[in-house]
Amino acid sequence: MVSFTSDYNTGAHPEVMKRLIDTNAEAVPGYGADPFCAAAAEKIRSAAGVPGAQVFFLTGGTQTNAVVISSMLADYEGVIAAKTGHISVHEAGAVEYTGHEVLELPQKEGRIIPEDLAAYLAAYYADDNHEHMTFPGMVYLSHPTEYGTLYSKRELGQIAEICRQYRMTLFLDGARLAYGLMSGETDLTLRDIAELCDVFYIGGTKAGALCGEAVVFTKENMPRHFLTSVKKRGALLAKGRLLGVQFDALFTDGLFFRIGQHAIDMAEKMKGIFRKYGIPFFIQSPTNQQFVVMEDGMVEKLGRKVAFEFWEKKDETHTVVRFVTGWSTSENDLLELDRSIEEVIRGV
Amino acid sequence: MVSFTSDYNTGAHPEVMKRLIDTNAEAVPGYGADPFCAAAAEKIRSAAGVPGAQVFFLTGGTQTNAVVISSMLADYEGVIAAKTGHISVHEAGAVEYTGHEVLELPQKEGRIIPEDLAAYLAAYYADDNHEHMTFPGMVYLSHPTEYGTLYSKRELGQIAEICRQYRMTLFLDGARLAYGLMSGETDLTLRDIAELCDVFYIGGTKAGALCGEAVVFTKENMPRHFLTSVKKRGALLAKGRLLGVQFDALFTDGLFFRIGQHAIDMAEKMKGIFRKYGIPFFIQSPTNQQFVVMEDGMVEKLGRKVAFEFWEKKDETHTVVRFVTGWSTSENDLLELDRSIEEVIRGV
Amino acid sequence: MVSFTSDYNTGAHPEVMKRLIDTNAEAVPGYGADPFCAAAAEKIRSAAGVPGAQVFFLTGGTQTNAVVISSMLADYEGVIAAKTGHISVHEAGAVEYTGHEVLELPQKEGRIIPEDLAAYLAAYYADDNHEHMTFPGMVYLSHPTEYGTLYSKRELGQIAEICRQYRMTLFLDGARLAYGLMSGETDLTLRDIAELCDVFYIGGTKAGALCGEAVVFTKENMPRHFLTSVKKRGALLAKGRLLGVQFDALFTDGLFFRIGQHAIDMAEKMKGIFRKYGIPFFIQSPTNQQFVVMEDGMVEKLGRKVAFEFWEKKDETHTVVRFVTGWSTSENDLLELDRSIEEVIRGV
Amino acid sequence: MVSFTSDYNTGAHPEVMKRLIDTNAEAVPGYGADPFCAAAAEKIRSAAGVPGAQVFFLTGGTQTNAVVISSMLADYEGVIAAKTGHISVHEAGAVEYTGHEVLELPQKEGRIIPEDLAAYLAAYYADDNHEHMTFPGMVYLSHPTEYGTLYSKRELGQIAEICRQYRMTLFLDGARLAYGLMSGETDLTLRDIAELCDVFYIGGTKAGALCGEAVVFTKENMPRHFLTSVKKRGALLAKGRLLGVQFDALFTDGLFFRIGQHAIDMAEKMKGIFRKYGIPFFIQSPTNQQFVVMEDGMVEKLGRKVAFEFWEKKDETHTVVRFVTGWSTSENDLLELDRSIEEVIRGV
Repeated sequence: MVSFTSDYNTGAHPEVMKRLIDTNAEAVPGYGADPFCAAAAEKIRSAAGVPGAQVFFLTGGTQTNAVVISSMLADYEGVIAAKTGHISVHEAGAVEYTGHEVLELPQKEGRIIPEDLAAYLAAYYADDNHEHMTFPGMVYLSHPTEYGTLYSKRELGQIAEICRQYRMTLFLDGARLAYGLMSGETDLTLRDIAELCDVFYIGGTKAGALCGEAVVFTKENMPRHFLTSVKKRGALLAKGRLLGVQFDALFTDGLFFRIGQHAIDMAEKMKGIFRKYGIPFFIQSPTNQQFVVMEDGMVEKLGRKVAFEFWEKKDETHTVVRFVTGWSTSENDLLELDRSIEEVIRGV
Repeated sequence: MVSFTSDYNTGAHPEVMKRLIDTNAEAVPGYGADPFCAAAAEKIRSAAGVPGAQVFFLTGGTQTNAVVISSMLADYEGVIAAKTGHISVHEAGAVEYTGHEVLELPQKEGRIIPEDLAAYLAAYYADDNHEHMTFPGMVYLSHPTEYGTLYSKRELGQIAEICRQYRMTLFLDGARLAYGLMSGETDLTLRDIAELCDVFYIGGTKAGALCGEAVVFTKENMPRHFLTSVKKRGALLAKGRLLGVQFDALFTDGLFFRIGQHAIDMAEKMKGIFRKYGIPFFIQSPTNQQFVVMEDGMVEKLGRKVAFEFWEKKDETHTVVRFVTGWSTSENDLLELDRSIEEVIRGV
Repeated sequence: MVSFTSDYNTGAHPEVMKRLIDTNAEAVPGYGADPFCAAAAEKIRSAAGVPGAQVFFLTGGTQTNAVVISSMLADYEGVIAAKTGHISVHEAGAVEYTGHEVLELPQKEGRIIPEDLAAYLAAYYADDNHEHMTFPGMVYLSHPTEYGTLYSKRELGQIAEICRQYRMTLFLDGARLAYGLMSGETDLTLRDIAELCDVFYIGGTKAGALCGEAVVFTKENMPRHFLTSVKKRGALLAKGRLLGVQFDALFTDGLFFRIGQHAIDMAEKMKGIFRKYGIPFFIQSPTNQQFVVMEDGMVEKLGRKVAFEFWEKKDETHTVVRFVTGWSTSENDLLELDRSIEEVIRGV
Repeated sequence: MVSFTSDYNTGAHPEVMKRLIDTNAEAVPGYGADPFCAAAAEKIRSAAGVPGAQVFFLTGGTQTNAVVISSMLADYEGVIAAKTGHISVHEAGAVEYTGHEVLELPQKEGRIIPEDLAAYLAAYYADDNHEHMTFPGMVYLSHPTEYGTLYSKRELGQIAEICRQYRMTLFLDGARLAYGLMSGETDLTLRDIAELCDVFYIGGTKAGALCGEAVVFTKENMPRHFLTSVKKRGALLAKGRLLGVQFDALFTDGLFFRIGQHAIDMAEKMKGIFRKYGIPFFIQSPTNQQFVVMEDGMVEKLGRKVAFEFWEKKDETHTVVRFVTGWSTSENDLLELDRSIEEVIRGV
């Protein structure tokens, strides 16, 4: 059955796979000290325009969030995130497991609004008892957000300015960064992100790798003895090459960006199909995740023909569902989706 | 340069790699709910003779130790390990990071002696103030140990009996289990281990996989909501298939055991080479790690021809070095080692 | 200067102090194994009508919350609290420090509304991905709340029923319980609380003791080896007698209730003073904390005559301030407050 | 029954008690911002000869160790302690609960030997893989040690020098410091300790207070926002005055030192009694804890007349027992001990 359930439901992009095969026999040092990691880091620095940045490869998104946040916060600090942020809701309390509080802000379609952030901080420091409350030490954003939405360059700039003012670290979770960068409706480049954020990561798992996220410390601010902190958190791979080889492939010949562009193109065509059949959007997403509202009967019938994900109940008789495109989504998959919707509508 | 530095310096065994390629395009659910994980678990249960066991796949050894130990101990408990155990020394305090103490016992060539364990527990419970001390809740063993040595069936049985008596969990770290099982000097089978231990893991990373360890809960004792505990520790892979596919390959046509046998065969031949040149063994290891003592001058010269690992200084003029074999060690590698030693001795 | 800043700004009630003096020379065992702790526990069991309850004495409120919550939650669980709850805001992340998430619910004057709780739980378990989210394992209430408000017997019963339904622990923070129990506007007795809650604590620090909170496990549900868990969290006093003696005094001749009644009487008289001068209440509090709204000029002038606490800004020109009564608040203090307000209004 | 079980089995020294009574009615700010804490801190700075030191009051010893160690170590660091150190054995894993490893060194009568420390550090940094091992970031000493023994000024100086060399913090646990300072066999003064150590604490609980330890950061090195870190660990008392008042009393008219001297005098007389009856010492302790070896029969019979503590079995028929003196030990208590031993020996 054709599947739009996620951007991590198939294996690796063929070019990533080929690189793994080609390098398989080489004997190299473990724990990230191999030439593949070094080459990948260099390509990432170059693509992001930050020659002095430090790059460290980790395995998955929740792990990366917990490792980065807990090793960069001071003891008395917590991290600010949108109430709908991944670390607030969908990581089973991984940040709290490291002993730090997630300070939740209101959100708009998944985004933190700069004014809300400024108001929160002003109120915090105005409170005589704020030393009895967790200090805000970092702002966590996801780009794209959990709703597939994006920050504008102006918004990210405002948030970065507030962070500087309050001496907080700005951390951007780019688990789906490929789709944010290649969206037709963004003015934020990889270089902008590297310039504005103190640390961010480039998601591999959801962009054609088997696993892997590349953390970029943009201001020579990688925590001292970070390798030991990573090891202590059980996040250091013996065969670090697995991550280095894949990111080296992703940043060769612009593969990472091509993967992003392909998924965006597929998503745009998919949006056209939904529009053709008058299926309304729950949210206007300019990236590879599309949220639409369907009658429950349609959800059930369509679900027998193509795979997609339940998101939330909209009302008594309607449901929000999510369709995601990725490196492996094909024109044929979309034809199958088109045909399936038509059949359901025609009552076939 | 030919390398004997570790059993994780090359990529995946070709049969593992082939399976990754063959399954790459299939769209499957994430987070370990895929058919490959299910098939691999079934094959492992069958190989270990524990039809009711629960199998969970994690990424690396330190991660596995920390996740298993912290999710199985009670709040007031710690884990007993040999003073030289991997969790005691070489995991950067990963167990302590989860809030639990490692209770160190004396060791003999890396092994815990059953009598020492019994004496420790008797003294603990005889102490009127033991409620001010961490309760011993688990025994951690590695098999092979960090010195390449092995427990006998009798020793493991004695330790298991003590664990039962004191209601402690017996956990066996099998990061290099393939080499323990296929050693010519062992009477312990995979079935014995599954029967005697409450939980153990089968190392993939050091036995031909790119990454991956298979945890086996042998007594239907997987902690409740374990998936959530794994997620909370940042250890849940989105593409869980990566682990499932590899272990499915490892447990198809006995690949795991063939890899173990090959490395043992290579190690035995390597031992013959050391004997031929009168290079003494630091320890008698029946597995794939060999520790030998060399004059410092020889270490330096040989190090220019083949790669191996510094272990520790023996005395002013001698050093203990480690040579490891693995799935990719070849007869040619051994010829090269033989030739290199000869050249060093001949002063070439 | 007369002070209404808090109910912990003076030392111990004279009857508590006297007991400390009278028992000072007796040599007794440490760590809570003394006869004073035993006697106090027995008196508390009797007053609460729970003969089988287990009572454990801790030093302060934040400590008690962190110790109780972290030792009663399962690894994969978090605790539900009002967004304004003490553990959510004013404990510097002490619960998160133990590795557990605080799941924040909306609140009404500091209270959790049973319907909101039920809706949250229904949505949680309806979510297919809830295993990626922290399990709700406990409900935390404060009674009185941080705003001095109270739960009715009906509300607490409804919440208890929901907890039973979802197998969650119901924990009531009674840091100011004395004032909740003796309020003129409550129908909840100590016996009701002991019957409905799984665990609660009786605040000593804010009710006439130098320090101390008495945790009551009402269902023989004190965690196994709790003393060790308390020790592990640095919360076990060597001279446990300090807590036992004070609670023994508090539960002799109804001192605890007399202290509560006195503070409530003083608070009611204080409310009369505010009403006399037309100073509006920010919230209708039936306990010993009163929140009133004053013009900023009045706040400044009154602040030079009597001590009280800034709570929050109401608008550009008004401020919410807090006045608290306690065991040591006297009729003279109130006369002084009355006179001071009059002087400020008259412009003296 | 006369008791020599511990130095915390009675209440507070009368002068401490009197100060609590005298200050009881004063209304002061909470959380340590009261004038008593300020005055006590000033007296301690003066007594220790460190005018710029920062002083913070905590409640008990295990709490103090965990708070100080965890807030001063970097993420990747652990603390070195003697194998018999209090944090290694008798704190139920409180340091590990904060996520940090205790690195155990051999000991001699409870002391760390400077040479052992130097050797440990040299070996650690010589190891190529030390980044996979916990970094040693602090040395923890207790003075007196758990065996009542003392460091000489020369030894402490050597250890301090090694700490400087390796940029480690030197932390001295002075739970029984009063008895170390007033021992007849020490050349270490409070000023020496303040000069040589980066942080140490002065034990109140075991020296005449109801509770309380005074942490002294000697080099303006109190961790930033330490109050918040203390609060986060549940260790901040609302009525911080309880600690301030007691330490103010202890450091008025040399009370702390008089208490120490008294206990030492009593201990010396007690040693004379043991010598008179030929009861051998297990260890030569120059402080207020005395360890002697008795036949099991004598232990049992004497235990019916005076209270003391079982320490450990010496051999099949002998036991090591501990007798402790404190502020409340009287000449009469010693007469009773003398008479009791005589009666047991005479078979009465």
